[in-house]
Amino acid sequence: MTFDKTDRNQVKRSPQRGHYDRETIYRVLDAGFLCHVGFVVDEQPFVIPTLYGRENDNVYLHGSTASRMVKNLVTGVPVCLTVTHVDGLVLARSAYHHSMNYRSVVLFGTAVEAMDDEKDRGLFVISEQVLKGRWDESRLPNEKELKATTVLRMTIESASAKIRTGPPNDEEEDYALPIWAGVIPLRQSYGKPEADPKLSDGIELPKSVANLSGVTE
Amino acid sequence: MTFDKTDRNQVKRSPQRGHYDRETIYRVLDAGFLCHVGFVVDEQPFVIPTLYGRENDNVYLHGSTASRMVKNLVTGVPVCLTVTHVDGLVLARSAYHHSMNYRSVVLFGTAVEAMDDEKDRGLFVISEQVLKGRWDESRLPNEKELKATTVLRMTIESASAKIRTGPPNDEEEDYALPIWAGVIPLRQSYGKPEADPKLSDGIELPKSVANLSGVTE
Repeated sequence: MTFDKTDRNQVKRSPQRGHYDRETIYRVLDAGFLCHVGFVVDEQPFVIPTLYGRENDNVYLHGSTASRMVKNLVTGVPVCLTVTHVDGLVLARSAYHHSMNYRSVVLFGTAVEAMDDEKDRGLFVISEQVLKGRWDESRLPNEKELKATTVLRMTIESASAKIRTGPPNDEEEDYALPIWAGVIPLRQSYGKPEADPKLSDGIELPKSVANLSGVTE
Repeated sequence: MTFDKTDRNQVKRSPQRGHYDRETIYRVLDAGFLCHVGFVVDEQPFVIPTLYGRENDNVYLHGSTASRMVKNLVTGVPVCLTVTHVDGLVLARSAYHHSMNYRSVVLFGTAVEAMDDEKDRGLFVISEQVLKGRWDESRLPNEKELKATTVLRMTIESASAKIRTGPPNDEEEDYALPIWAGVIPLRQSYGKPEADPKLSDGIELPKSVANLSGVTE
């Protein structure tokens, strides 16, 4: 259940922070829903933020048929897909040892267009990744909407995770300096839901939202 | 003060969300400190999360001389540098019109190594971007540390921002559906500082940390 370590996915800097097992890689992927997708057009790299959903070794993306990302990815070009969570600022005594606590994954593969049942499934998987339960509350896509949307499946060919946790590491002689050191945690949280000004009266907050940690009406 | 709109930086999908003026692009850049850097090695794109600092049209990056990113960027290959802030989940009545509120910028250019005074300046600019005032509180880099670090300057050649705000947009006939719609704000915030277990007694929380919004001891 581990991805082979090759030149492509190897964590070269701070290799002790590198992980290649699916359990760790899945855990980092499943904690987010926004990725940065890299692809190349005429030697120019593009890095585009987009939503994703993971199921097993498949990562689904979607977009308008008119988008640069979709137009290029459907042609089967090499893709790099990266997800990063920043967990804290690591303040050391020395400027040099300042760091971040973070969890990131870098995935490699190529995308193919998901068709028919897999297209529906891909949209469901992305929706569930962003907000579990929302799909079943929504008015589902009609033919026209499906036609305007391309769903892409990228099977993970190669991957690695890189994770840093814990306090700063300073040079032995710096611990005596009268400089504060430690970690400032950073977290993402949901705020109070803002109802659409056009929302009809008497419609309650849905389960999907009520289930989000920290959300109250 | 606007970047020319070319095929490279043009926002193709939802063009009404595209911005090309420096004021908007700088504002999105200045609200963050983590970017995703894209570069190509033998036709394979890589997307690597890293810290940055902006000064005028220059974006500074740094890394170990041993890192894949540094080794490739110093050779002057084309770079795409993307910064994304997710501001909220946009829940529409229809699955199709679900969206995100976000601010993102995509920058294009090539990197050069910053040397001597500019190297020091680049490190300062990155440090200030992550945590204003921290540089002056820290034990500054010595020769050996400077030697182990490469600082890169990427002058922005071309750029665009893409921004979505506000409530969902549904199809006219869907507004009558008994489905909740609105925005769930998402924000990043700092938690309670965690002192290094090795911190000497009597060292107070520094100004840089105390000045962070929401941080209390």
